[in-house]
Amino acid sequence: MSARVVLAYSGGLDTSVAIPYLAKMTGGDVVAVSLDLGQGGEDMESVRQRALDCGAVESIVIDAKDEFAENYCVPTIKANGMYMKQYPLVSAISRPLITKHLVEAAQEFGGTHVSHGCTGKGNDQVRFEVSFRAQDPSLEIIAPARDYAWTRDKAIAFAEEINLPIEQSASSPFSIDQNLWGRAVETGFLEDLWNPPTKDLYAYTEDPGLGNAPDEIIISFEKGIPVAVDGQKKSPLQIIEEVNRRAGTQGIGRLDMVEDRLVGIKSREVYEAPGAMVLIQAHEALEDVTVERELARYKRLTDARWSEEVYDGLWHSPLKRSLDAFIEESQENVTGDIRLSMHAGTATVTGRRSGQSLYSFDLATYDTGDTFDQTAAKGFVQLHGLSTQISNQRDRDGGFPTSAQK
Amino acid sequence: MSARVVLAYSGGLDTSVAIPYLAKMTGGDVVAVSLDLGQGGEDMESVRQRALDCGAVESIVIDAKDEFAENYCVPTIKANGMYMKQYPLVSAISRPLITKHLVEAAQEFGGTHVSHGCTGKGNDQVRFEVSFRAQDPSLEIIAPARDYAWTRDKAIAFAEEINLPIEQSASSPFSIDQNLWGRAVETGFLEDLWNPPTKDLYAYTEDPGLGNAPDEIIISFEKGIPVAVDGQKKSPLQIIEEVNRRAGTQGIGRLDMVEDRLVGIKSREVYEAPGAMVLIQAHEALEDVTVERELARYKRLTDARWSEEVYDGLWHSPLKRSLDAFIEESQENVTGDIRLSMHAGTATVTGRRSGQSLYSFDLATYDTGDTFDQTAAKGFVQLHGLSTQISNQRDRDGGFPTSAQK
Amino acid sequence: MSARVVLAYSGGLDTSVAIPYLAKMTGGDVVAVSLDLGQGGEDMESVRQRALDCGAVESIVIDAKDEFAENYCVPTIKANGMYMKQYPLVSAISRPLITKHLVEAAQEFGGTHVSHGCTGKGNDQVRFEVSFRAQDPSLEIIAPARDYAWTRDKAIAFAEEINLPIEQSASSPFSIDQNLWGRAVETGFLEDLWNPPTKDLYAYTEDPGLGNAPDEIIISFEKGIPVAVDGQKKSPLQIIEEVNRRAGTQGIGRLDMVEDRLVGIKSREVYEAPGAMVLIQAHEALEDVTVERELARYKRLTDARWSEEVYDGLWHSPLKRSLDAFIEESQENVTGDIRLSMHAGTATVTGRRSGQSLYSFDLATYDTGDTFDQTAAKGFVQLHGLSTQISNQRDRDGGFPTSAQK
Amino acid sequence: MSARVVLAYSGGLDTSVAIPYLAKMTGGDVVAVSLDLGQGGEDMESVRQRALDCGAVESIVIDAKDEFAENYCVPTIKANGMYMKQYPLVSAISRPLITKHLVEAAQEFGGTHVSHGCTGKGNDQVRFEVSFRAQDPSLEIIAPARDYAWTRDKAIAFAEEINLPIEQSASSPFSIDQNLWGRAVETGFLEDLWNPPTKDLYAYTEDPGLGNAPDEIIISFEKGIPVAVDGQKKSPLQIIEEVNRRAGTQGIGRLDMVEDRLVGIKSREVYEAPGAMVLIQAHEALEDVTVERELARYKRLTDARWSEEVYDGLWHSPLKRSLDAFIEESQENVTGDIRLSMHAGTATVTGRRSGQSLYSFDLATYDTGDTFDQTAAKGFVQLHGLSTQISNQRDRDGGFPTSAQK
Repeated sequence: MSARVVLAYSGGLDTSVAIPYLAKMTGGDVVAVSLDLGQGGEDMESVRQRALDCGAVESIVIDAKDEFAENYCVPTIKANGMYMKQYPLVSAISRPLITKHLVEAAQEFGGTHVSHGCTGKGNDQVRFEVSFRAQDPSLEIIAPARDYAWTRDKAIAFAEEINLPIEQSASSPFSIDQNLWGRAVETGFLEDLWNPPTKDLYAYTEDPGLGNAPDEIIISFEKGIPVAVDGQKKSPLQIIEEVNRRAGTQGIGRLDMVEDRLVGIKSREVYEAPGAMVLIQAHEALEDVTVERELARYKRLTDARWSEEVYDGLWHSPLKRSLDAFIEESQENVTGDIRLSMHAGTATVTGRRSGQSLYSFDLATYDTGDTFDQTAAKGFVQLHGLSTQISNQRDRDGGFPTSAQK
Repeated sequence: MSARVVLAYSGGLDTSVAIPYLAKMTGGDVVAVSLDLGQGGEDMESVRQRALDCGAVESIVIDAKDEFAENYCVPTIKANGMYMKQYPLVSAISRPLITKHLVEAAQEFGGTHVSHGCTGKGNDQVRFEVSFRAQDPSLEIIAPARDYAWTRDKAIAFAEEINLPIEQSASSPFSIDQNLWGRAVETGFLEDLWNPPTKDLYAYTEDPGLGNAPDEIIISFEKGIPVAVDGQKKSPLQIIEEVNRRAGTQGIGRLDMVEDRLVGIKSREVYEAPGAMVLIQAHEALEDVTVERELARYKRLTDARWSEEVYDGLWHSPLKRSLDAFIEESQENVTGDIRLSMHAGTATVTGRRSGQSLYSFDLATYDTGDTFDQTAAKGFVQLHGLSTQISNQRDRDGGFPTSAQK
Repeated sequence: MSARVVLAYSGGLDTSVAIPYLAKMTGGDVVAVSLDLGQGGEDMESVRQRALDCGAVESIVIDAKDEFAENYCVPTIKANGMYMKQYPLVSAISRPLITKHLVEAAQEFGGTHVSHGCTGKGNDQVRFEVSFRAQDPSLEIIAPARDYAWTRDKAIAFAEEINLPIEQSASSPFSIDQNLWGRAVETGFLEDLWNPPTKDLYAYTEDPGLGNAPDEIIISFEKGIPVAVDGQKKSPLQIIEEVNRRAGTQGIGRLDMVEDRLVGIKSREVYEAPGAMVLIQAHEALEDVTVERELARYKRLTDARWSEEVYDGLWHSPLKRSLDAFIEESQENVTGDIRLSMHAGTATVTGRRSGQSLYSFDLATYDTGDTFDQTAAKGFVQLHGLSTQISNQRDRDGGFPTSAQK
Repeated sequence: MSARVVLAYSGGLDTSVAIPYLAKMTGGDVVAVSLDLGQGGEDMESVRQRALDCGAVESIVIDAKDEFAENYCVPTIKANGMYMKQYPLVSAISRPLITKHLVEAAQEFGGTHVSHGCTGKGNDQVRFEVSFRAQDPSLEIIAPARDYAWTRDKAIAFAEEINLPIEQSASSPFSIDQNLWGRAVETGFLEDLWNPPTKDLYAYTEDPGLGNAPDEIIISFEKGIPVAVDGQKKSPLQIIEEVNRRAGTQGIGRLDMVEDRLVGIKSREVYEAPGAMVLIQAHEALEDVTVERELARYKRLTDARWSEEVYDGLWHSPLKRSLDAFIEESQENVTGDIRLSMHAGTATVTGRRSGQSLYSFDLATYDTGDTFDQTAAKGFVQLHGLSTQISNQRDRDGGFPTSAQK
């Protein structure tokens, strides 16, 4: 059987040149698959045509924006998905969706191989390949940048050699991945950790120092899913787009971090994720009101583990699936409205209301009408601390340093 | 033996009136103990004298600012101590120190009882009493607000009845606890969760919208301990004071949250903690550079558990002590400088440098000089995902929904 | 409204005398509710009649054996429910079911109070009362042993005083709770931790040293639920009864432990749980074959937390519910057979088979036919250890002790 | 520089033939390093001589039994080190010690390479190589079985070809690794999971059904370290040897499990670890008496994570080091005696005594003299369950299924 490579095609130089290169290396042909994940930029039809121009036998474009919002961004909101408490998994959640469509295209078009443009140093190769193998291990995987040490210079040389009809843009210093959920930027300049990011890095957010007027927003959730903005019912996609735009105007969601990659190294990353950051913040604030204490404490561990699984490319793992079941059950009552004030780089929660609130004015108030039985507290405190008391007594009796002394 | 009550004395109306009240209820006398924890406000000598005026047989004032900074705030920095990912444990870490000095005073002055002014609905009663019993379970504990249902109205009536030489200030709507590490405010108005905080709540921070000029600060750590600001060596106390002042000017560190109290209810709390928030942020950024991935992942769980223990009044528990040992060991290499830009309510890390960095330019860079062996990645990815692959294959073979489908 | 107390009635001396005592103390009357949870012993009709003889206005007996097996024991199997890795939650899982029926009886018979016979030192008071309040907080709770300091001596004196028609058995030295899932024994003799248990403590198990012939058993599971023994389809109740009998004959399931009670003290407990121990062991062995590594690792944490929740009386907590969702999802493929050899106090797993096994002979074998790609391992090992390698290198470079040296 | 390979030499056929083979493949020479870890069997001097006979330029034997017992087995006891709750890490803890001596030998003898005999499918390659790189990343690693696909058949053919003076024993069906801490057996026959182990697999334990007379043993610990048996002070090595012998006679410590290897596959393993199992069981029983509840609960998680790290080859990781610090602190009071009865495959704890016990007869007893304040319990129970009560009430009010209903 001759090879047919289904390629995750972005429209950029590297994957464009990869089309003839993969054909040459495998002796087969190439099907280009491009997804619209809300990344903006170029018209998707131009992207589709370029793949054909570069020699693809088929080139398809899939509008996966709603699917991405509903099945990938929304679960991330429910899980308050943040790697290292900071990074809202922008690229990490897009890879499983891209691979889903590539595997489907392989089945439709008789693909024997799947291919992606990632290098061997990053997380995305892991996310692509684990997801491919989870869905169809019979597909062979080719990662030219890693497996053939295929670099930009080689790509340009090869494009010239075969006279490929593609403009070579002036080399950008940035390596960018962007979608509805955010934008990731890597660049040589940032590799010195003491350098601050420069203004030209940003595209999804305005400068927080611009002095734009504050913007108040009310986000409504049902069972953990965002369903309305300022009282207007909207789809998850529409909500993420609107919050991206409005939070971006306020300069919210810029991230600059040193990140622990799965392959064992630390890297410097700059992200923009205005909508993701505000939606997760709002969701957490609503959980604070509607989720019971011990469930909330354990859910924080679960959220962290979920985020690690997704970051580590294990979207399709059985563990993630069981974590999802936990999280889904926890969202039963996460319904209500959160009001935020967005301004100058910061979103501040200023109000919460929920028909399923666990906050009880009558229990919490110090005013008259208080229904809390304070006499219960004395015994509670005594037994709550009893094992600590006995342990310190033991230490004193034995002449050991007590916790109190140490 | 006649009673002698050692009272945690703040100088305010409630604990002032408590002096004669406790004497009356126990038939004994009262020793007032006041700590300077950097709470500012009134001169401590006036506080001391007032206790005597109200009938205390002894009144002592202890300057515990350095002790608080070094033995309570610094461990909180090492543990990135945040309850519910938000609250830097402002009151929670002060109670164990206050009880330490009360227990010492009881030993010095022959105290038979210890007393605090907390109600039966909050966390502070737990923190006081568990700490008392951990250190000296022979001391009896009296909490008049809880045990005698002692309210402000009763206090005022009693003060008039016995002609106590104390001014009754116009009743403030706020209940406040403040120290070097931050400030906590409760008030009836906030008990409606939809109400935003009002400007008069704040004292440690200026309005972030004031348009103050940005402030760049470099904080240096050695083994997780802050040791210098802008290159100037300082004590922890001096550093916290300086960062409080400078971050406060920028409106940084205002918190408004719905909190899960240990006694089982949710409450609305407003905090200001400019120094705490910036120092923990800087410390976390330095950990990102100097702490290995798996240690960092596990330390996040440990930090969360540490914060729960401290919030829950278990400063003296054996578990906290073992968590401390873990954290202490993890700080071995947390040495270096973090540069932050503070402005308009936000602190942003803009640079990190450390002689003990785990970040390696040579490994991370995509430029020439790269020392990372990309060929290793292919096998890594394959085995990293193997158990997920096998599991999905099993599900497909059995006709079960796979992780990929679900 | 006059009081009507719905009492958890065991038929024993204490709860029998409690009937007239509660009537007297509340000025109302008493409804006795007894559950058959497979505890064996006395005929339930005699129990029912005795309550009436002691003055109950109603006395009902509920056969809850199947309900207990299906809705309480089976979830414990799925969760491998063991407190402190040892105790299979014998009493802990029965209390929520007893309270369910008491609350239903209160609704049916117009009860205003519910009552149980537990003291203030144990866990069962917690389990009863938290479950009552979770289901119907309007019911008042009376625990005479704790709230009225009602002791056995007082009970006997009161029985004589009112001429209660009840035989006073010679005081047993044992305090016993038993049901289908096991048997708990407390006794003064065991309060010295150096004393071994005596033979007369045991009733569910024979002496393991008796020399009974070994017994081989095959237990089959579907989605984590035991469904057959030795190939015969049976209900959970039937399976637990059979395994109790057969494992009990082999002396399996005797436990002697020092236990951390929720109220803050340690206690010595002796249990017998032959069926529970063997069924959980078999279930774990089947999970080892059918559950993927990382899911299995995380499930062990989840199982431990589940067991703590149930032990701590929080069967009705929202956290338990979300943990249940995780566990339920994890059981999707826990289907297959486990063969055990039971003999002389020990059950040993000697075989596993499952159509949903993740074990692959072709991958695991060292024989020819091996399909595992060993070349992948070299790169895997390199990147798996890379962050540890870099960290040790950093320590060496800095003159710090490395992990290798310490 | 010409190559010098420092080889982990066992004396068996594979590593014997590896000596000339590695010399040939690298064009250098070979230094053989053999460790006495208490594995018994052949005289170590014969082993040493055989390496020379096979062409090694140096052959050294190191008696590392005490070092292994003190620095590897004892920490495993403190951590109750069990992978998957079953396997006491027999091989896993030996690899870091072997690599330590190989790295030292490389430094002493000018080694450029280190080599081990493991395949690419197991865990031991990971443990060897991560440990090598943690200690000296400049050493090149050769794993002939994996990197050269070097099999037993090839080894025998090569031995004949070069006329190597080594007897070819009749091929044993077993692949065995053994040391002081236990014994691991793999064999083709076990690769069918339904097959029970056969009697000829075992060497460290006798058949539990032999009817040997019971043996009572008292093991004493100081700060978690075993220090005496039956009142006789002994070294850790002596204690492990004695418990191995006595527990082995009773048939204790046979394990048969399906194990999750780090490389992503499941494998069937049979182990014998009589001393390890009994010492850890005794240690856990002493912890139950001397470690406070919440510390004990968290330590169980820490122990599990420690065991995973060690199993996964990460003995030298920074995380393991911080986990060690936690565990070390937790052992402060783990001092006392545990009495066990060993018989017919089972060890049963029958007594505990400790001067640092947290068990208090006066608190636990139901007899007169009880010092536990039962009145405190009522309030404790109320607040302990309050958040669950409120949450169920919320669900009822909202018409949602409550935890009680679901």
